[in-house]
Amino acid sequence: MDGIKSTHTLVLLRHGESTWNKENRFTGWTDVDLTDKGRDEARKAGRLMRDAALKFDAAYVSVLRRALWTMWLALDEMNQLSIPFIKDWRLNERHYGALQGLNKAGTAKKLGDEQVKIWRRSYDTPPPALDEGDPRFPGNDPLYASVPRAQLPRAECLRDTVARFMPLWHGEIAPQIRSGKTLLIAAHGNSLRALVKYLDRVGEKEIVELNIPTGVPLVYELDADLHPLGHRYLGDPAEIAAAQAAVAAQGAAGTQHQ
Amino acid sequence: MDGIKSTHTLVLLRHGESTWNKENRFTGWTDVDLTDKGRDEARKAGRLMRDAALKFDAAYVSVLRRALWTMWLALDEMNQLSIPFIKDWRLNERHYGALQGLNKAGTAKKLGDEQVKIWRRSYDTPPPALDEGDPRFPGNDPLYASVPRAQLPRAECLRDTVARFMPLWHGEIAPQIRSGKTLLIAAHGNSLRALVKYLDRVGEKEIVELNIPTGVPLVYELDADLHPLGHRYLGDPAEIAAAQAAVAAQGAAGTQHQ
Repeated sequence: MDGIKSTHTLVLLRHGESTWNKENRFTGWTDVDLTDKGRDEARKAGRLMRDAALKFDAAYVSVLRRALWTMWLALDEMNQLSIPFIKDWRLNERHYGALQGLNKAGTAKKLGDEQVKIWRRSYDTPPPALDEGDPRFPGNDPLYASVPRAQLPRAECLRDTVARFMPLWHGEIAPQIRSGKTLLIAAHGNSLRALVKYLDRVGEKEIVELNIPTGVPLVYELDADLHPLGHRYLGDPAEIAAAQAAVAAQGAAGTQHQ
Repeated sequence: MDGIKSTHTLVLLRHGESTWNKENRFTGWTDVDLTDKGRDEARKAGRLMRDAALKFDAAYVSVLRRALWTMWLALDEMNQLSIPFIKDWRLNERHYGALQGLNKAGTAKKLGDEQVKIWRRSYDTPPPALDEGDPRFPGNDPLYASVPRAQLPRAECLRDTVARFMPLWHGEIAPQIRSGKTLLIAAHGNSLRALVKYLDRVGEKEIVELNIPTGVPLVYELDADLHPLGHRYLGDPAEIAAAQAAVAAQGAAGTQHQ
């Protein structure tokens, strides 16, 4: 079709299993690797997208290696490694502050299930903030040397993640889509929640209960104003339901995103 | 150091062993994978660059998967996957025209050692050109859909590879280096020959005999005018000499690039 397209395709992909998912630790911005299972999930996602005949013009991705590798392996399966990549810290996972590195179960035992559930699932209560001298503060990581220090989080609630993600959407991603580009966004549970919340106008209470499965391509069709006409997961429905249940079971009971 | 740097560092990296290197076939633009050995070479190159404390601002790479994977695995070892990548077809290997896909030894047997040696080692005699209807012509590959058809080769001698690489150097890479950026260029035997020929003012006869070993980082220090102050390979000198001898042994006798 020539000229401006009347509908747009956008694909969201949450990274596969990481070493700390497996160890049940609060990860946030900690730059951990995918596990073998996570790499398999990424390649499988690539095959699903290839079989759906998706052709990307560019990929947006966080600067964390688990998302970068997920994008890379998926695009390798699609034979689309040569498309442009745009890597942006604003697609990073929610920053878990002083909880980063702690075991989830151990923390719940020490500080109480209720407190941990609030940090994990409330929209606007951030976990304890890092001191700026803490090596876990992104201002001390050369990876973020080009980001103004005041913009870097010491801890984030989901509201904070939404707030730092939206300028990337409005300033870069949405204009690219409007110009006719088909994009892949490879990112994390909470940065993708931020986008789904915006696209589908999900409420603050509902979004924290919405679970995007790992390694399953989520395909949105958008109209000319970038309002969703609908979305679908690629793959076997029973497997997707199981993947969502597995994510939900890590924390509080979750509703499904169908 | 503040302001304009008085010297610049540029690193060239030739991809590791590919499946067709191993099968001794003319590869050119055929988009073959690295072998396990090639992947090991790439990771080792990354460790050498990491140990040399190299920090890149961006990476230039061809659009062929053996160079893309070499760059990716090397940068993974350096924990520098999040730097910008610039992927450009002008860094591709020399296009081998109608020879692409043929076995080197079988072709020599059929058409004569001397003829094959000319195609492999002369500066300005291209191999037989592809018909534009041939599936091997890049104009028929969606990967090159954005490149004007008239710019895409049907076969190249090294002179042609130099001619299509130089605009990328002058138009993009050199200005980036002058602005103070430290760059990695991950590419192929002949596109890197084109660059070395220019930087070190190597003659047309000498450049075809110069062998850049695979998977060994080649570090140039350049002055403010981008004239080389010197270059060195990273790694064990005996191993590098062996790698150069192996490349040379694939074809005619070669002089070493030391």
